[in-house]
Amino acid sequence: MAKKKKDKFPSELRSDPIARDWVIIATGRAKRPETFKRETKKELAADIKTCPFCHIEKEKDKILTIFSKGKEIKNLDGDLNNWTSLVVPNKYPALVPSSSLNEKNVGPYKKMDGVGYHEVVITRDHKRSLGQFTLKEVKEVMDVYHGRYLNLMSKPFIKYVSIFHNHGKEAGASIFHPHSQIIASPVIDPDLNAAVLTSEEYYKKHKKIVYCEMNEWERKEKTRVVFENKEFMVICPFVSKAAFEMIVSPKRHLPYFERITDEEKKYLAEAMQVALQKLYKGLNNPSYNFYLHTSPCDGKDYFFYHWHFTILPKTAIMAGFELGTGIEISTIEPEVAAEFLRKQ
Amino acid sequence: MAKKKKDKFPSELRSDPIARDWVIIATGRAKRPETFKRETKKELAADIKTCPFCHIEKEKDKILTIFSKGKEIKNLDGDLNNWTSLVVPNKYPALVPSSSLNEKNVGPYKKMDGVGYHEVVITRDHKRSLGQFTLKEVKEVMDVYHGRYLNLMSKPFIKYVSIFHNHGKEAGASIFHPHSQIIASPVIDPDLNAAVLTSEEYYKKHKKIVYCEMNEWERKEKTRVVFENKEFMVICPFVSKAAFEMIVSPKRHLPYFERITDEEKKYLAEAMQVALQKLYKGLNNPSYNFYLHTSPCDGKDYFFYHWHFTILPKTAIMAGFELGTGIEISTIEPEVAAEFLRKQ
Repeated sequence: MAKKKKDKFPSELRSDPIARDWVIIATGRAKRPETFKRETKKELAADIKTCPFCHIEKEKDKILTIFSKGKEIKNLDGDLNNWTSLVVPNKYPALVPSSSLNEKNVGPYKKMDGVGYHEVVITRDHKRSLGQFTLKEVKEVMDVYHGRYLNLMSKPFIKYVSIFHNHGKEAGASIFHPHSQIIASPVIDPDLNAAVLTSEEYYKKHKKIVYCEMNEWERKEKTRVVFENKEFMVICPFVSKAAFEMIVSPKRHLPYFERITDEEKKYLAEAMQVALQKLYKGLNNPSYNFYLHTSPCDGKDYFFYHWHFTILPKTAIMAGFELGTGIEISTIEPEVAAEFLRKQ
Repeated sequence: MAKKKKDKFPSELRSDPIARDWVIIATGRAKRPETFKRETKKELAADIKTCPFCHIEKEKDKILTIFSKGKEIKNLDGDLNNWTSLVVPNKYPALVPSSSLNEKNVGPYKKMDGVGYHEVVITRDHKRSLGQFTLKEVKEVMDVYHGRYLNLMSKPFIKYVSIFHNHGKEAGASIFHPHSQIIASPVIDPDLNAAVLTSEEYYKKHKKIVYCEMNEWERKEKTRVVFENKEFMVICPFVSKAAFEMIVSPKRHLPYFERITDEEKKYLAEAMQVALQKLYKGLNNPSYNFYLHTSPCDGKDYFFYHWHFTILPKTAIMAGFELGTGIEISTIEPEVAAEFLRKQ
């Protein structure tokens, strides 16, 4: 017997036999069709009074992680102002915890319930974004990411944990107050899957890690290097998908983000801070997305993969050609972009 | 000896050994880094006086194709007003004709000159877009697409011809006046490449065409069918990448767009007209992209592929999760979207 409508799982994962893509149909966040009608877009409301994240500490029982001035604390301990970063479940989750995946074939397609976790990382200040943070503040954000990653990677069904940050309306942020998101998912996404396969292939053929080859070549060439410290480098990649794209990656070969040390996290924080500061200054606080790519947490060995953050400023719109072909058109050479960013 | 800077080819294709993606670095359209600084976005200027496409017929010697009231004509024949559609080379091309590809390996990457063709299809009316066109007018646009496709597919180096249309600023249109674009490229894009490989695999395994299986299933299910006529169907696909996405595809198995008959083009025109009208009415003239996916024109046999148009309304922004994972989140079920569109 068919489930009653009201029993329907609030989110569904669907997969295509051709692209082998997954999409999430998040009916739990669903809107009536009429609400999609085009309206003149407004800027994001920056009003503190109505900001859902400025008083998030009041929803005490929902808090998953609290940091106060660089250190994780167990609870607010009576002092509601005693926090600098907080993690809470997303109020409109794309994926939702469950005890079963409920996998099915439907026609030529596959589907399963949208099982997983969707969390929001909120930093205290309503206005200041990561590009304006102190080193200590960026380090705290990296600590929060790492802590939540460790927590989520071992949950049942979870094969991949995606950490990402949307800054500015053009980059898809719907709330002004700076925040990052974490989605833990039961499927390995097609982009990462492809990267994992080709980097394994490369290893088998050349007995070398393709990411290390790329980083080494960039260090020789120098023209696309924006910044480096003892452990990390920031480059505008030779094959940039967007103008001013930056990759922040460890110099040592590290396949698993979860294994980062506290010492390494300090250098990561510095590299991220420098990269985002340069964007903030050089391009006048542009909208951007950044996201982590790391080995899946499905228990398999991915020694040939190399984790990194990608920062994508929103300097252009993906239009028909990019959407239709997957080929991006960039109107600035990464070499020129890197030179410009180095000077900031 | 290195080429002098001024001899540099105005566009470069670069490929990544991991994603195996291609990007186009269109230095011919290059801007200074400072021009990427964030500005408050303005609406597209709709002023006829300054519209570059309203008097395009004056650039007579650049015109590649002219149609007048449904028929192709050889030239304007002294009457500058005697046109309804025109094709000209893009003034800021992403790809440029050349007699050599100049392929090279650089470090772990590949690159070649950005060789190809980039054209603009302009319809006469400054304001009316395809969703407001008569059937005869849409048929003319399909004729123009088909004619240019036939012309470009046989040019040297060309392996793929991409036809696409960006409507509205949010969809990446930079000029208000309705226009489509055609890019003929020397590489098969990674998305199409993957689709070709998986549909061949499916054929080898099941001795069936995966696209026909999908269409047949949709016709049985009915819930996602928006419209059908004798030769074409319009569906909101089960695995929709965006809210209100529509696929317009032939019911008969047709791998090669270039082989469409005049009779079939009439039915295609009707299906496109209905789909775009429904979007225009139902969602209040939203921004959208549409693009053609068809078999590559590299001389190989692709009998297992099935050409189609994809229409993607811009109802959301691709943010960190979508960009980082390739998994799209949709907040409306395709079944609900199709029901809404059927009623328009």
